[in-house]
Amino acid sequence: MDDRWVRYTDALWQSALPTYEEILRHPFIAELAAGSLSRDRFLFYMKQDALYLKDFSRALALTGARLPEADAAKSFLGFAQGAMGVERLLHETYFQQYEVILDVDKAPACFAYTQFLLATAATAPHTEAAAALLPCFWIYREVGQEIVSRSQDKLAANPYARWIETYSGAEFDESVSRAIDIVEALAQDASEAARQEMQRAFAKSARLEWMFWDSAYRLEQWPREQT
Amino acid sequence: MDDRWVRYTDALWQSALPTYEEILRHPFIAELAAGSLSRDRFLFYMKQDALYLKDFSRALALTGARLPEADAAKSFLGFAQGAMGVERLLHETYFQQYEVILDVDKAPACFAYTQFLLATAATAPHTEAAAALLPCFWIYREVGQEIVSRSQDKLAANPYARWIETYSGAEFDESVSRAIDIVEALAQDASEAARQEMQRAFAKSARLEWMFWDSAYRLEQWPREQT
Amino acid sequence: MDDRWVRYTDALWQSALPTYEEILRHPFIAELAAGSLSRDRFLFYMKQDALYLKDFSRALALTGARLPEADAAKSFLGFAQGAMGVERLLHETYFQQYEVILDVDKAPACFAYTQFLLATAATAPHTEAAAALLPCFWIYREVGQEIVSRSQDKLAANPYARWIETYSGAEFDESVSRAIDIVEALAQDASEAARQEMQRAFAKSARLEWMFWDSAYRLEQWPREQT
Amino acid sequence: MDDRWVRYTDALWQSALPTYEEILRHPFIAELAAGSLSRDRFLFYMKQDALYLKDFSRALALTGARLPEADAAKSFLGFAQGAMGVERLLHETYFQQYEVILDVDKAPACFAYTQFLLATAATAPHTEAAAALLPCFWIYREVGQEIVSRSQDKLAANPYARWIETYSGAEFDESVSRAIDIVEALAQDASEAARQEMQRAFAKSARLEWMFWDSAYRLEQWPREQT
Repeated sequence: MDDRWVRYTDALWQSALPTYEEILRHPFIAELAAGSLSRDRFLFYMKQDALYLKDFSRALALTGARLPEADAAKSFLGFAQGAMGVERLLHETYFQQYEVILDVDKAPACFAYTQFLLATAATAPHTEAAAALLPCFWIYREVGQEIVSRSQDKLAANPYARWIETYSGAEFDESVSRAIDIVEALAQDASEAARQEMQRAFAKSARLEWMFWDSAYRLEQWPREQT
Repeated sequence: MDDRWVRYTDALWQSALPTYEEILRHPFIAELAAGSLSRDRFLFYMKQDALYLKDFSRALALTGARLPEADAAKSFLGFAQGAMGVERLLHETYFQQYEVILDVDKAPACFAYTQFLLATAATAPHTEAAAALLPCFWIYREVGQEIVSRSQDKLAANPYARWIETYSGAEFDESVSRAIDIVEALAQDASEAARQEMQRAFAKSARLEWMFWDSAYRLEQWPREQT
Repeated sequence: MDDRWVRYTDALWQSALPTYEEILRHPFIAELAAGSLSRDRFLFYMKQDALYLKDFSRALALTGARLPEADAAKSFLGFAQGAMGVERLLHETYFQQYEVILDVDKAPACFAYTQFLLATAATAPHTEAAAALLPCFWIYREVGQEIVSRSQDKLAANPYARWIETYSGAEFDESVSRAIDIVEALAQDASEAARQEMQRAFAKSARLEWMFWDSAYRLEQWPREQT
Repeated sequence: MDDRWVRYTDALWQSALPTYEEILRHPFIAELAAGSLSRDRFLFYMKQDALYLKDFSRALALTGARLPEADAAKSFLGFAQGAMGVERLLHETYFQQYEVILDVDKAPACFAYTQFLLATAATAPHTEAAAALLPCFWIYREVGQEIVSRSQDKLAANPYARWIETYSGAEFDESVSRAIDIVEALAQDASEAARQEMQRAFAKSARLEWMFWDSAYRLEQWPREQT
């Protein structure tokens, strides 16, 4: 970077701040934090998230395989396994607790987001792929911590406490910081044109994060002919 | 195939027939055939189609590079160049005629469809990738020929005649038949499990075709926070 | 499989048995087992192996990302991390012990093998990719156990004992069995044509394993003009 | 580029000049130019070249699908089709003339080169992939023109005249210039680190070109156990 006082990833976050703030204002997040989110909406979200995580894991592995630096590649493989682990955890907690099975296909928002991540991970420059994968880390950490901060001593009574704790915990925090540092290092060696593509990819994924929650709140279906 | 009297691709088409019939009934197609489609909607469609064709071409090239049989690979490379050629043609005819420039990003339907094709072409089995790419050939041919048949002697007066002729012509017909034959041959050597995935991919692309036209008719925008 | 009494992977191993027996007879393995292998040859091997493991890990991740079944995908991601871990271990044991640094490029055998694995993992059917990755697991286990069985009570005195123990241990054995089971399951769902390609890929990698050891024994250099 | 008077691709060629000069001095090229090359060696070369061209075409398509600029992508698709066309031409001329069939597998040099191109085209940055594909264009043009210049009026009597004319002709020259210009443009937007990787890939392919001819001259076989 030309300017030694500003990290590229800080600028990246600033550029997506309006989207992040829309997410925080979204009724899905507000009701999740308050513990008042309907079970239907939460279960819709959980099922879509389980489907998302499988492809997120694949996209992380594809990108990790293409990162030139060995430690960064190793971290991405660790993230890929972590995503599979969270998917498993969803099944073993909420899916069992609510006695549900994964009987659905991807809703349009989940479909668009996962296909974007896979297509980018497989065919775009690895710098762009890493940037596209970052919002899912970064926004979840910020949302998780924001919800904890809003909830304060009422968190234990929140039926969705376990979900909230996953994303506000120290272990996830560490992964997110590592993912940010990897993207920062990639940006340092990237050309200006490549950095602009990284920002476009980051912004697109941030929008798709918003759409993912909005999809759950609306219990989104695939459009059909009006009859 | 176990049954020598039924081609796999015929069964594939039958399975997508309800979607094809929804497409034929869609007001976009009805008004396009009548020549009454608004210029805004047609231009929206043209711009999205130009964006689509670039990625369609890339997905054809990625798939062609993975087809084991050399003649099939060569055909897919030819299709990839053809798609680029149609994209160029759009610019040189409608874009110049209406004095428009390609100043837009992909609308959600175009985005989801292209990312699905690229992700599938790059990471799914090549059988599935070829099946996912087929509806754009097959449905366009059928729609093109259906519009000509509805129009009869009024086609010359239709402001969108050139578009219609592209997809109802003999050259395109030949490409479509070749693409169908390649998918048929791939299905012959595929396991039953692989054929089921081929059908899922074909059906998904057929739905995305409907959504693409529906998107144009609705002049679809990316969703934003309700304010 | 048509024949319920024979596992596909057993037939796979049988087909590569002559190559495996050539490997066991190779002076590199004979001298490694006897502890008489020259330090130069062992260090050449170690350095090439470190370079190999980085790409082997990438090829495992690429293949894992394309395996349809989630548990199999997760195992391959685990293997990919394991390969990175062994590469790290090499540095922290032998490289430090012998005070060497990784100052070389891939020799021709390592180059050909890694490029084959990466190309296959990225572009061939995932069944073929998994089969190409299997010999490095299976042959190493058999070689490791064979050397232990030959060495008996002299293993402790062998300067290469740590290397031998890595590949003759229970943990590696478990990974190898898991890798074999995944390939077996893939073969069950594969067409006959796909299985033949799997066997070709397995046989090619087995030959490249022999060449890799032969390369180390010959301290192989890139060919140059005779002057 | 920092220095406006030197094209990146000129520096690229300079860095590979020693390898090019080794190629010109190789007995395969000397005897090809003199028309004295044995039929066995020429046929070995032709068969390997036919196998090479199929994968070269695939690698061009994979890279073309990943080039961001539409005209460059289109050119690479055209090159991919051209490579298939030359492969066809070999069959229809020399293979028929000498009544041979393509009954061989890739020799080690052809194997290593094609796997390198495919692996790089599928997983490395597109800048590096394009650079790896360039020597096959550039070196063939220079070799073709050099042979013509050496042959002068004796070319018509050379039994390999048709081959020589393919690579010394105006049509191929135009493709080569276009390929060089695309790599030049990619280098302009690339970071310094990316350009160094481009040069490494270019140098590696240039060495593999030398090895490919050397392989044909030696009628190279896969190594086997010494018995």
